[in-house]
Amino acid sequence: MGRWEPDAQNRLREAALSLFADGGYERTTVAEIARAAGVTERTFFRHFADKREVLFDGQARLQDAFVGAVTGADHDAAPLAVVAAALDAAAAHFPPERREFSRQRGRIIAANPGLQERELLKLATLTDAMTEAFRRRGLAEPAASLSAHTAVVTFHVAFTQWTAPDEQRSFVDLCRSATQELRALTAG
Amino acid sequence: MGRWEPDAQNRLREAALSLFADGGYERTTVAEIARAAGVTERTFFRHFADKREVLFDGQARLQDAFVGAVTGADHDAAPLAVVAAALDAAAAHFPPERREFSRQRGRIIAANPGLQERELLKLATLTDAMTEAFRRRGLAEPAASLSAHTAVVTFHVAFTQWTAPDEQRSFVDLCRSATQELRALTAG
Repeated sequence: MGRWEPDAQNRLREAALSLFADGGYERTTVAEIARAAGVTERTFFRHFADKREVLFDGQARLQDAFVGAVTGADHDAAPLAVVAAALDAAAAHFPPERREFSRQRGRIIAANPGLQERELLKLATLTDAMTEAFRRRGLAEPAASLSAHTAVVTFHVAFTQWTAPDEQRSFVDLCRSATQELRALTAG
Repeated sequence: MGRWEPDAQNRLREAALSLFADGGYERTTVAEIARAAGVTERTFFRHFADKREVLFDGQARLQDAFVGAVTGADHDAAPLAVVAAALDAAAAHFPPERREFSRQRGRIIAANPGLQERELLKLATLTDAMTEAFRRRGLAEPAASLSAHTAVVTFHVAFTQWTAPDEQRSFVDLCRSATQELRALTAG
């Protein structure tokens, strides 16, 4: 490993986002990303399976955080408390210094239907994994599916707010506000 | 129009589902569907833009039912009451005699990743249209998005139950049970 290796992944990510934003996602090549980051293509492929993975490589960690919180919650915790714990665990992956990356990523995805489909599939896969985790806690249907969807929808809505231009509130605060709002709405 | 024309669309739909189930969605051609339904390819294209549309041509009507219920609800109705009205309007599109078609359609979609993405995109488009309808009612964010997601998620969960093997309850009843369950969960 060369002396720059520890930062290579971050530099590749920044270079890729910049190139996607300027020249378009489709037209950008791995060779261009590697060159802009000052590494070889081989180094790129040590960190990412392909250029799409630069935008989606956080999925496994995010899903682990969500599912881990459900699995690790007290056996007698109410579903909404488990959802709240899962959201706190997920929100920890989005500190303030990541907001600008998430905003740029969101703009690139919004401009490309194939990436939008990938993003939807990611959320659906996360919902399936959460449903399974709630079932393992002994929740029956439709409660397991509804709990899982509630967690993922609240995450998605709070994430959209968090990445909006000029938004200042933290992701944790936005998740908690959205949970409160959902509770008020469904209390009807 | 020949004397069979009024039924052509239904016969095409049944022929397509049967061929998709037997030979696989990808391998089935429009020519085969038309032949099995006893009509010309030209007749097929009078009813459907392409073979995928046989599975998705109900989307516009479903979305109109959802959005129309939100737009037509009393100005002072609570969001959850509006969601319930939207679900009742949507459920009316799924009478008992449609359940077997929906089951077959679900199996075909589950076997094809491209069709799954199309289905997810359909639900996302429906959610966007519902969010917009709730905003026009004066709901702010995140309440508008959360109300829209609540309606679509409840629909999706009830639909999955409705098309499960051996399920007997009506779609309207399953929607209402899911709404009650969600209310109980979020009251947590």
